[in-house]
Amino acid sequence: MSILENVTFDEIEIGRTASYSKTLSEEDLVLFAKVSGDVNPVHLDAEFAKTTQFGERIAHGMYTGSLVSAALGIVLPGPGTIYLGQSLRFRAPVMVNDTITVNMEVVKKRDDKKFVTLECTIVNQHGKKVATGTADVIAPTEKIKLDAPELPNIIIG
Amino acid sequence: MSILENVTFDEIEIGRTASYSKTLSEEDLVLFAKVSGDVNPVHLDAEFAKTTQFGERIAHGMYTGSLVSAALGIVLPGPGTIYLGQSLRFRAPVMVNDTITVNMEVVKKRDDKKFVTLECTIVNQHGKKVATGTADVIAPTEKIKLDAPELPNIIIG
Repeated sequence: MSILENVTFDEIEIGRTASYSKTLSEEDLVLFAKVSGDVNPVHLDAEFAKTTQFGERIAHGMYTGSLVSAALGIVLPGPGTIYLGQSLRFRAPVMVNDTITVNMEVVKKRDDKKFVTLECTIVNQHGKKVATGTADVIAPTEKIKLDAPELPNIIIG
Repeated sequence: MSILENVTFDEIEIGRTASYSKTLSEEDLVLFAKVSGDVNPVHLDAEFAKTTQFGERIAHGMYTGSLVSAALGIVLPGPGTIYLGQSLRFRAPVMVNDTITVNMEVVKKRDDKKFVTLECTIVNQHGKKVATGTADVIAPTEKIKLDAPELPNIIIG
């Protein structure tokens, strides 16, 4: 079981960086389609995807967004963070087996409201930018350290 | 089997609206945690969530983002859309059994690059805004009409 520990507003300094990585599986395409309802065949049907400009199945755009959300929620600032807003520019498609890394850097803090702004640069395993954007959060003021919940098994098909 | 039919750039007029709705299930919380890796207990652990300001489990912020992505990918403009960018402000939490509706309105078109900008207002079943934002896409130029892929069964636990 892994430990989740947050970084409080007072602990966060401008310029602090953190990152979070995940590899896209075929199953993730199905799970994201299920949870969002987005059954566009470019994400699900390998034969159809061959006929598109991408030549193969691509991840839903907001799959990348979900990794940014995860990076904020479990790494920096971590548990207790309130997500206020996000901008994202999608720059390149994400394919099955791509390992996507969300790199974050704290660029702004506002003491009275505990607002923190983080620049996000999301790259694949070749270092190519797949998305960039800015996240606005309220950082937690109290230290939280807890066991990450274990997810149940998920069986597809 | 449902049919997906896109709206081409030429068919899209300024002021055109469309919407897309989905109800958040308990299973969706687990699936989104799996696909994003975000195992923050505020989304997964009902007992823990009771101790937070929300009082119960809330959806991941980007769950709402995923519904916007779905609305663009399967409704307006639909299949063939290229997602360029998205801004989102999160305004209220989304809870289990909430029915979330993404309302979209076309506010800008740029003929030379087939860019379309859509304002997005995302509300719950009480009409309360849970998020607002702007989507930028390249709309498809060719008509696409196809059968939506059927998703396999997904069993949790």
